[in-house]
Amino acid sequence: MDYAATTPVDPRVLEAMKPYFSKKYGNSMSLHSFGLEAKQTLEDSREMVASLMNAESKRLIFTGSASESDNFALKGVAFANREKGKHIIITSIEHHAVLEPANWLKKQGFEITHLPVDHYGMIDLNKLNEAIRKDTILVSMIFGNNEIGVIQDIEGIGRICKEKEVYFHSDATQSFGKVPIDVKKMNIDLLTVNAHKMYGPKGVGGLYIRDDIEIEPLIHGGGHEFGLRSSTVNVSGVVGFAKAVEIQKKEMNSDAKKQIKLRDELIKEVLKIEDSHLNGHPVKRLPNNANFWFAFIEGESLVMQLDMKGIAASTGSACSSESLEPSHVLLAIGLKHEEAHGSLRLTIGKYTTKDDVDYVVEVLPEVVERLRKISPFKKSW
Amino acid sequence: MDYAATTPVDPRVLEAMKPYFSKKYGNSMSLHSFGLEAKQTLEDSREMVASLMNAESKRLIFTGSASESDNFALKGVAFANREKGKHIIITSIEHHAVLEPANWLKKQGFEITHLPVDHYGMIDLNKLNEAIRKDTILVSMIFGNNEIGVIQDIEGIGRICKEKEVYFHSDATQSFGKVPIDVKKMNIDLLTVNAHKMYGPKGVGGLYIRDDIEIEPLIHGGGHEFGLRSSTVNVSGVVGFAKAVEIQKKEMNSDAKKQIKLRDELIKEVLKIEDSHLNGHPVKRLPNNANFWFAFIEGESLVMQLDMKGIAASTGSACSSESLEPSHVLLAIGLKHEEAHGSLRLTIGKYTTKDDVDYVVEVLPEVVERLRKISPFKKSW
Repeated sequence: MDYAATTPVDPRVLEAMKPYFSKKYGNSMSLHSFGLEAKQTLEDSREMVASLMNAESKRLIFTGSASESDNFALKGVAFANREKGKHIIITSIEHHAVLEPANWLKKQGFEITHLPVDHYGMIDLNKLNEAIRKDTILVSMIFGNNEIGVIQDIEGIGRICKEKEVYFHSDATQSFGKVPIDVKKMNIDLLTVNAHKMYGPKGVGGLYIRDDIEIEPLIHGGGHEFGLRSSTVNVSGVVGFAKAVEIQKKEMNSDAKKQIKLRDELIKEVLKIEDSHLNGHPVKRLPNNANFWFAFIEGESLVMQLDMKGIAASTGSACSSESLEPSHVLLAIGLKHEEAHGSLRLTIGKYTTKDDVDYVVEVLPEVVERLRKISPFKKSW
Repeated sequence: MDYAATTPVDPRVLEAMKPYFSKKYGNSMSLHSFGLEAKQTLEDSREMVASLMNAESKRLIFTGSASESDNFALKGVAFANREKGKHIIITSIEHHAVLEPANWLKKQGFEITHLPVDHYGMIDLNKLNEAIRKDTILVSMIFGNNEIGVIQDIEGIGRICKEKEVYFHSDATQSFGKVPIDVKKMNIDLLTVNAHKMYGPKGVGGLYIRDDIEIEPLIHGGGHEFGLRSSTVNVSGVVGFAKAVEIQKKEMNSDAKKQIKLRDELIKEVLKIEDSHLNGHPVKRLPNNANFWFAFIEGESLVMQLDMKGIAASTGSACSSESLEPSHVLLAIGLKHEEAHGSLRLTIGKYTTKDDVDYVVEVLPEVVERLRKISPFKKSW
């Protein structure tokens, strides 16, 4: 129930990767046969990954992670375009990999607008329109949110950015391979994607960059990836990403259909628990995401208790054990601190069955009840 | 004959990695059992990799590549310490992954000194001593050079940096797992390492950062790796790196002994070719590196011809097909343009046999002779 954290590598993906560790192990920059073979594999993989977003393959740059792609997009556009302007707009529900680079850019003299969202997590297109200024160089808006699953009106955002001649970046880490993405139709200039949320390996991401975008590399060096991301290319990883994409091209629609049915069943049943609430939009949400908050309990305890029952889940209570602040996403949709602390994210995937959902629906009410009995927050429980 | 470009993954390494793709696939930041298992694996791997450089494990940060580590070290130290000073010293034979970040930092207002090397590729410790100023914040010097294999007096450099209270970074991409490295004894503050040059997987690097070093992350976000490198950790990759380190801890010394013998045999025989010359130091060089220049021929043609004979090699003639400039390293040791264009790098490894060397020694003179016959540069040939 935690497919949004990461997914297992599809056995077909691992099979495709295997020859590239010890046999076809060339460096794509080498001039000899081993190198040329690696280069050809790299370019074939690039074309495959690009095809799932309807992009020209040339500037689909392979990176080491979605976080790297987000950092590259924000810092790269900011540094390359600072003569044009220093204003950047993001939503208030971005992933940390966009939020923190934006915070860092602020320290470097850029100005960041955090666009608010409504209680479903949706931005208001009119507000975006008003927020864009003459010195705005970039709009970065998450495609499908990693916590509450809400999917923005990306086509609408793209249209506004195109009209206003502002670059548009979207973090599609949780969306790529799950919902249709078309960078041309949606006017997306830069798109962050990665492999390990879609049954590919960890350590491989991508950033699509439209051909005429000015961008400064994040990793300078030997000039790999059209001079935009230096590092010996992780060929086995890239092959795994491409294979995961090839599979999702065929299975995405049927996966989504099946997952939406399971997700909605899950939501319906969980909301039968007293004082439970759905976070995010009821319909405009990722096929695999359900997110709730339960009054009077603490999300970390909930996750621990579920873990003891064999259920892996996540909470916005504290993103890491070091932080005591609840999720900025849950606060942005209007939850109070204590409400956000009682949140639970359940995310399903390719291998989730009706039995899995039934088991969660059976166990969760008991766990919630038990935690409420010992809760210091409880009122009448 | 191109182990310096990359190495095959040792079958024992691949075996160790396999369970971490589809079975033990947890995200090390998750609070549940899958996450805790991944976190434990990550920390065990960190300890193993740190042990081969005699480092405390806490600040051995896993990255996506050596290039990322180099960028992180240079930009991270520069941005975090710019109040102290804006002067950085590097050698004139750094890898592009140090050279280019330094060039970029220059554009951001930092001042870069490129310390010259002698005709062997060695820096002069007195010149380093003189070059360090009150506003010097970082010295970055490559451990064993990727092209000509020369190994600097790292302990001597470390001593000077410690005395002068300047941070010392060394790029040990080609040295880690090949020659002994001790960050304490050598007073190294930051050390770049990676897996794919030592029979581990591509897409995994590391940066050792001494505990009290002020450094700004290159990739901001969710706060992984002690807040210093955000990205879901590539657990299978990290496990592969650790296994490669475990193997090299046992086999490094015997590998080096064997390779030095083969390398010296190779050098002795190749130098019998008329008008051939060794690049780099005869003794202070990586166990697996041989580098030559041949008068009147062009390195790329040489690499192509050798490839047709089944020999993979490399040249400093043009690092990439787009560039016509010969290697800055070969120019730095005093080679003329036309001499650098006639360079050939032969690098051996764990699986190189005496037969391999004999075959190269048999084929190379014929190829050189043939190329000289058709050479436009030739004089009396």
